[in-house]
Amino acid sequence: MKNIALKICYDGTNYHGWQYQQNGLTVQETIETAIKKATGEQIRVTGCSRTDAGVHALEYILNFRSGTRIPAERLPYALNFYLPNDISAQEAWEAPEDFSARFSVKGKRYIYKILNHVFKNPFLSKYSWHFPYPLDLEKINRAAAAFEGKHDFRGFMASGGQQRTTVRTVRACFAERTAPDLITVTVEADAFLYNMVRIIVGTLADAGSGKLDPDALPALIASGDRRLGGITAPPQGLFLQKVYL
Amino acid sequence: MKNIALKICYDGTNYHGWQYQQNGLTVQETIETAIKKATGEQIRVTGCSRTDAGVHALEYILNFRSGTRIPAERLPYALNFYLPNDISAQEAWEAPEDFSARFSVKGKRYIYKILNHVFKNPFLSKYSWHFPYPLDLEKINRAAAAFEGKHDFRGFMASGGQQRTTVRTVRACFAERTAPDLITVTVEADAFLYNMVRIIVGTLADAGSGKLDPDALPALIASGDRRLGGITAPPQGLFLQKVYL
Repeated sequence: MKNIALKICYDGTNYHGWQYQQNGLTVQETIETAIKKATGEQIRVTGCSRTDAGVHALEYILNFRSGTRIPAERLPYALNFYLPNDISAQEAWEAPEDFSARFSVKGKRYIYKILNHVFKNPFLSKYSWHFPYPLDLEKINRAAAAFEGKHDFRGFMASGGQQRTTVRTVRACFAERTAPDLITVTVEADAFLYNMVRIIVGTLADAGSGKLDPDALPALIASGDRRLGGITAPPQGLFLQKVYL
Repeated sequence: MKNIALKICYDGTNYHGWQYQQNGLTVQETIETAIKKATGEQIRVTGCSRTDAGVHALEYILNFRSGTRIPAERLPYALNFYLPNDISAQEAWEAPEDFSARFSVKGKRYIYKILNHVFKNPFLSKYSWHFPYPLDLEKINRAAAAFEGKHDFRGFMASGGQQRTTVRTVRACFAERTAPDLITVTVEADAFLYNMVRIIVGTLADAGSGKLDPDALPALIASGDRRLGGITAPPQGLFLQKVYL
């Protein structure tokens, strides 16, 4: 059996997130169905992240054991034949026996898009958070800097996570104006807690709109109190952008 | 009665084109419904172009007569409250009495996006033509230059148009690589024939893929023979980008 690593990208709009569940179609299930059609094998794949419903991935890594005779580098062609248009296989390779997309990942980078304009944008409604009030980019970045470094992020997680520790190292957290009306937030860390990026972004929006003093962020993070941060920003603005192996 | 001009943008994926028809929902009908809800008036709007099903507009101009007391500059806010997420009002103003979005337009610019990569892209499937074979940008631009200027474009139209003349002046026709795997074709003209941009793009793809000699384009255009050009490129890559008033 080979240990095959697969890189995909997907538009999460029409899925109930990554992970298999009984209530709705997920990306994982759709990938497993395509693998079954391409190789004849009914297997379970391991993903690098549990993305929520509506969250997208510009790059997502998964792995699975397979006895297929299709060479790894040809697998994306075979899978794309069976995959729907909102999921695309980009690259596959034979990974070492002990590689796991869940446990071998050394870090991830997410981006989050905020449409900051009074009117909605038809092309961004599924790919951004429409925030129609003024945002101060300088204040957002002053607040964002406080997230960088090693912190206990227990105040920036939704309940439901099952981690041993809530300490994470954020390698980068900053915002840029990537188009006249678009603010893109980048957050890179060794690992993330459940909803961590979306709560950080909701808190940055409070800092940018004047609701929260950017200089209060270090104390807010240290408090570990979820109630002091901003809302959980909606899922459709979030993209897994890069997975570090 | 005021003559109100309205600038909108829309994602055409879920519409049967701009113009009202009995077989399916159109952008025109959706706008008219929103105007009815916002102003109470059942009116008919005049659009600047009949875009086909699946074609998008980054900028689209329409006009209509109204007795509403809502100031023109507030209309986009009122309309966006009732419009679905794939149509957005951007600007409205009181136009001169004789202004017509159909007849006062002095030119239009379209862009057409070609995804030139072996694998599909989930985020571009509704916004580009997936062309998986190699394309030579230099050859495309050599062919594109032949379209510029005043020509009889009767060989670059689908049947069904009702124009007096098939002579049009193309002000610009060129292709650029706007992302590593994305070629964007721009075509600007005083006016367009039915399906003209999509047939031009289909022909440029033939030139770029080596199926057609780019230097044969002037004679091909002069022939007026639709059968010598390329296919009609699919609608979802086409965007009305700019309307010149």
